[in-house]
Amino acid sequence: MLETLSAEIIAIGSELLAPDRTDTNSLWLTEKLNSIGIEVKLKTIVGDDDARLEEAIRDATRRSKVVITTGGLGPTEDDVTRKVAARALGRRLSLDETILAELRQRFLSFGQVMPERNSRQAMVIEKAVVLPNPNGSAPGMFIEHEGVAIVLLPGPPREMRPMFENHVLPKLAGRAGSVKVVRRMLRVAGLGESAVDEKIAPIYTQYDNPQTTILFNQSEIEIHLTARGRTEVEANALLDRLSEQIEDRLGNAVFAFAGEKMEEIIGLKLTLGRYTLAVAESCTGGLIAQRLTEVPGSSKYFIEGAVTYSNDAKTRTLGVEPVLLLEHGAVSAPVAQAMAEGIRKRARTDYGLAVTGIAGPGGGSEEKPVGLVYIALSDDVHTEHRQLQIPGDRQLVRWRASQAALDLLRRRLI
Amino acid sequence: MLETLSAEIIAIGSELLAPDRTDTNSLWLTEKLNSIGIEVKLKTIVGDDDARLEEAIRDATRRSKVVITTGGLGPTEDDVTRKVAARALGRRLSLDETILAELRQRFLSFGQVMPERNSRQAMVIEKAVVLPNPNGSAPGMFIEHEGVAIVLLPGPPREMRPMFENHVLPKLAGRAGSVKVVRRMLRVAGLGESAVDEKIAPIYTQYDNPQTTILFNQSEIEIHLTARGRTEVEANALLDRLSEQIEDRLGNAVFAFAGEKMEEIIGLKLTLGRYTLAVAESCTGGLIAQRLTEVPGSSKYFIEGAVTYSNDAKTRTLGVEPVLLLEHGAVSAPVAQAMAEGIRKRARTDYGLAVTGIAGPGGGSEEKPVGLVYIALSDDVHTEHRQLQIPGDRQLVRWRASQAALDLLRRRLI
Repeated sequence: MLETLSAEIIAIGSELLAPDRTDTNSLWLTEKLNSIGIEVKLKTIVGDDDARLEEAIRDATRRSKVVITTGGLGPTEDDVTRKVAARALGRRLSLDETILAELRQRFLSFGQVMPERNSRQAMVIEKAVVLPNPNGSAPGMFIEHEGVAIVLLPGPPREMRPMFENHVLPKLAGRAGSVKVVRRMLRVAGLGESAVDEKIAPIYTQYDNPQTTILFNQSEIEIHLTARGRTEVEANALLDRLSEQIEDRLGNAVFAFAGEKMEEIIGLKLTLGRYTLAVAESCTGGLIAQRLTEVPGSSKYFIEGAVTYSNDAKTRTLGVEPVLLLEHGAVSAPVAQAMAEGIRKRARTDYGLAVTGIAGPGGGSEEKPVGLVYIALSDDVHTEHRQLQIPGDRQLVRWRASQAALDLLRRRLI
Repeated sequence: MLETLSAEIIAIGSELLAPDRTDTNSLWLTEKLNSIGIEVKLKTIVGDDDARLEEAIRDATRRSKVVITTGGLGPTEDDVTRKVAARALGRRLSLDETILAELRQRFLSFGQVMPERNSRQAMVIEKAVVLPNPNGSAPGMFIEHEGVAIVLLPGPPREMRPMFENHVLPKLAGRAGSVKVVRRMLRVAGLGESAVDEKIAPIYTQYDNPQTTILFNQSEIEIHLTARGRTEVEANALLDRLSEQIEDRLGNAVFAFAGEKMEEIIGLKLTLGRYTLAVAESCTGGLIAQRLTEVPGSSKYFIEGAVTYSNDAKTRTLGVEPVLLLEHGAVSAPVAQAMAEGIRKRARTDYGLAVTGIAGPGGGSEEKPVGLVYIALSDDVHTEHRQLQIPGDRQLVRWRASQAALDLLRRRLI
């Protein structure tokens, strides 16, 4: 069935050859390329090494129909991609005055004079289409060379990704032919990986197309569905059929149907209901507030957050009675509830959400081990709480506690 | 000068080209190779694809003194490494009766008869030294070919690692001589990538050893130094000499000398001085508190955080006068200062740190554009502030604002 184009990815930079660094751009690129029916056949990681890079580009161009490089477009001596790619393709490299003017302007808009070395970034390979970079100073290039598409992208993901999505993907999609690959991601909270698989394996194993992969990511289960079809409509119809069956089986535990984050889903529900929210955090230390306010427009519903790390702060800011702290300890159900009620009353919001727990590595005891977390949710009618015992290191306990608290709110908002 | 041997690593297997898989064997191998003075110059990841793999092995053998492959030594049709490596080197492949007998014995010891397809694993390349695999059925191979060492290793880490350490590392260490490679990472805040490079290029370009790479990561500049020496002491002395010169040139802007994070450095300084801290955040929405409390033991110095998103919250929790908000707006120097003073007094801490700004994408105006951020730091003597205009999207503005605020505190603590 459905034929695919071959691609190679070349990641450039000596730092990518260190023992503690890995090239992650190629993973993101692979997913995007797969989605338009292009298969990655080989990946190369090469340092700032003219000879090896030149050979890598030349070999890839001979073997594959699409060649993508990332990195090496910066302003320093080390950034050799432009120069070496030109040589590998036997094309001239020359200064583009328009790009140079834009670069100077970019620096001026930040109140700076462009350092002379940045003019290097205005060098363009003969007949290349220049790809604009709104997030950085390095423009990319798209070159047609003997039937092969060669694409030079910057290394930083936040520059590379929008450039690829806006300027490269549409060009490549055209040449990829009639196979469309469509992906969808469902997100699940409150169920373990095995539980999810046990529930839905009887459904998804019936299908070769779509393909289903279940991934465990911090405390979320991601269900990745990939469908192939002659058209996007056909592939999407296959996805619809399978994802409806999965949703039926998992119910409320599925919180996102198109890869949205928990905090985005909550923002949507709060906005729709015109509700307001305040949060009080101890062990999560601001993580819940930070996640909620990462969403643009969150100032409409997020009113105030309190990171009450010390007992005194819990009392003075949230009105938690000292006797509660004394009798039950800061990590307890009564304190979690008092925190949720306290922040709701203080900020005069519809909901108050609170977390207190022991993130570790220190601070645990036999009675209250590391990973013990209480979450509480208060509205003007009642306050509920949950006790959790979360496995993992400090960072993971904090993240999972924040997720559980947000999920408690999400379920209340349904 | 000290010549290090050059190595290439080829990871083999179609599954390594999926969007959710990365080759981690090469990281482990790189660390081991570096430790005996062998530098990895290029990495290739290739599928079960005869033609591309053959070319990859042939090219690597021509360019580098050590070539290591991982994977593709299993018993199935897909496992093509033996066959393709033999072809790439122009050597015969033949059945080794001793290995075959050992394989049969291995299966028998588990009470099984060897499946016929496993006899493939007894095929040996002409003149190869066979590397025993106590943890699996695939033996490895070590081949001397025109002055190059070619090593074929199995893919599973628990088979690959002991085989490499016991049988390959000693052989390679002999030929590498006594060269040691040592790395160090300096982190810089408050200067741009080009500015850093302009300042220190005159220094680091004087040295081939150590090698210097400058990386831009969110709003931090990372300076990676790699030194080679006959001993670790010698390599470290080279690093000391260069890093001291860089520190002299960049001064206070260098905040970490061994790759520590900003929040770790601040935690260290606060702990040493027995100081306490509270933070008041508007546009960063809890990110500063979250970063500070990510550090184990932060409860010793971090007392309270306030995420005062609404104006009301700034007044009721931080005591910011409504008239200030009315006259100057929430995003202004007087409000940032009042926030820093307010949280310090509320939490009775030595320092109060505050941020207010416009993270975008909405909320900007001509007078107060997206990216305008005020940070302020208060102690019992005085309160200082900075006005910043930060480029980037919402997430980046928030991160850079948090970094600038923490850096303001760091400089005060010096």
